Amino acid sequence: MTTAPFLEPVQDGLRAVEDLMRQQATRHHHDLDAALQHLLSAGGKRLRPALALLVGEMLGADPQRLTTLAAAIELLHTATLVHDDLIDGSLLRRGIPTLNASWSPAATVLTGDFMFAQAARLAAMAGSLAAMRLFAETLAIIVNGEISQLFDGPGRADREAYYQRIYAKTASMFVLATESPALLSHAPEADTLALRAYGHDLGIAYQIVDDILDFTGDQARLGKPVGSDLRHGLITMPTLLYLENHPHDADLQALLAGETPSPEAVDALIRRIRDSEAIALAAADARRLARQAAVHLDAFPDSPQRRALQAVAEYIVARDF
Amino acid sequence: MTTAPFLEPVQDGLRAVEDLMRQQATRHHHDLDAALQHLLSAGGKRLRPALALLVGEMLGADPQRLTTLAAAIELLHTATLVHDDLIDGSLLRRGIPTLNASWSPAATVLTGDFMFAQAARLAAMAGSLAAMRLFAETLAIIVNGEISQLFDGPGRADREAYYQRIYAKTASMFVLATESPALLSHAPEADTLALRAYGHDLGIAYQIVDDILDFTGDQARLGKPVGSDLRHGLITMPTLLYLENHPHDADLQALLAGETPSPEAVDALIRRIRDSEAIALAAADARRLARQAAVHLDAFPDSPQRRALQAVAEYIVARDF
Repeated sequence: MTTAPFLEPVQDGLRAVEDLMRQQATRHHHDLDAALQHLLSAGGKRLRPALALLVGEMLGADPQRLTTLAAAIELLHTATLVHDDLIDGSLLRRGIPTLNASWSPAATVLTGDFMFAQAARLAAMAGSLAAMRLFAETLAIIVNGEISQLFDGPGRADREAYYQRIYAKTASMFVLATESPALLSHAPEADTLALRAYGHDLGIAYQIVDDILDFTGDQARLGKPVGSDLRHGLITMPTLLYLENHPHDADLQALLAGETPSPEAVDALIRRIRDSEAIALAAADARRLARQAAVHLDAFPDSPQRRALQAVAEYIVARDF
Repeated sequence: MTTAPFLEPVQDGLRAVEDLMRQQATRHHHDLDAALQHLLSAGGKRLRPALALLVGEMLGADPQRLTTLAAAIELLHTATLVHDDLIDGSLLRRGIPTLNASWSPAATVLTGDFMFAQAARLAAMAGSLAAMRLFAETLAIIVNGEISQLFDGPGRADREAYYQRIYAKTASMFVLATESPALLSHAPEADTLALRAYGHDLGIAYQIVDDILDFTGDQARLGKPVGSDLRHGLITMPTLLYLENHPHDADLQALLAGETPSPEAVDALIRRIRDSEAIALAAADARRLARQAAVHLDAFPDSPQRRALQAVAEYIVARDF
């Protein structure tokens, strides 16, 4: 559970979300319940439900329906990770063994499906058809993005394609977290759109930071080798910005052409990117987007929740890379 | 598309459902769209949406919302089959190659996920939170059933366990098809419960017939070897009834004890079951349940739709085994 000070206003709410999620992991087949408990224990920052709670409380949403919606969003997020890790063959997430590390593919597929079902059930119980529809559309966007990546490989190495990809992968779920409580609260359309834009820009900034950390983090903390995106042929913001300034890097061009450079060449390329100006440029882009996210909140009167949402935008880019 | 005469009242409705489902298979990644079109072309009897349309029309549901709900149900059904076939390693369904026969597991998992998302989106668009909730609960029941089967293997060889298993596997989706249009139509609770009971008994009868055909059908028409359930260690109604009358069959006892008899011994066991009185007894049980299903419809005034629903119950058990 997060202890970031700006999430103070929703500490009680997050506890209720946690309880509700864990209640979904009882009364089924005991192996399934154990798997669900394991997945929920693996934790994470619970950033998405925190955002949903902050927005909902800011708009005066019904607390019980809001808790239910926030739990649905986090369960949906967790379900997509379960199938993701299976597809990528990832054995660790947040330093904890993934489900597919110890379970068969069949059991892992079904556990993900079960979490989808429980997430959808909670989303329906939150009592807003508009939120429910956004919920389903978000899942479709995420999965379509994964399928595109699976079939197209790295795809075009330009910013537009990159932003599109991380919208599908990450920002769409942030949009769900910030827009659906507005739909639940029957907020005016302009407010709903502002919160959608906040979630979008925040999510893009968040993923850019994540993509920077893939180059600058240390292996122990990342729980995976440094530069693992590039090792998997995935072109992220640091690589894109490096490419703009070093268009003739032979190893990178080989990678983009679908060739497989030697592991030593990839190691060296990752070091060149990490030590280049691309990291600072990517961080600047993330900060620009986080500031832009916060500006969308200007439409709302001052409140502890609005201040917390602004603090989230500052927090996710407030680190030295 | 079905041409059963009793489905005449919903022919137009079924065409609208078909169109709506195919609209969900456009505007995404082209490989995904192609896979979705393939899955929808593989067809099937469209029995579940037909049931939903008949019930909804009988109750005066809004036609557009009813079409949307019926399409959601058939997409959900198809999505569960996609993951099922992957898990079972099935290469054919209805004589047509399954998705996993030609696609990677990753692509197959994601295509199933995408269909879940599209099904949930349509279910939300149908505009009934109660129907949406039943929709999500049905998915949870189906998946929990599959997980139980995966972990427990054949499980207890008694009728109660069998009925429970085929409720999760088949009848729960029939319940969704017959109860959700009642929820959409705000039918009185007694009517909703009667339609739920109709769907339940019909679904159980349907699955018993399917399980009989696994013994009595011919391989070409089944698209799989005769007795494939038993070959996979799955104990269905014919085997249960055979066991009641032949408790000392050594090969069957070996199978129940988790041993693996020789293929020849299993072939011979399948023949013994097929040629025993168990087939007629299982058929009698299916007919009893189909009659019981039809009785639940007595609560409704006579109408072409009610007569069609009664005809469905007669039709699914109207064959010589």
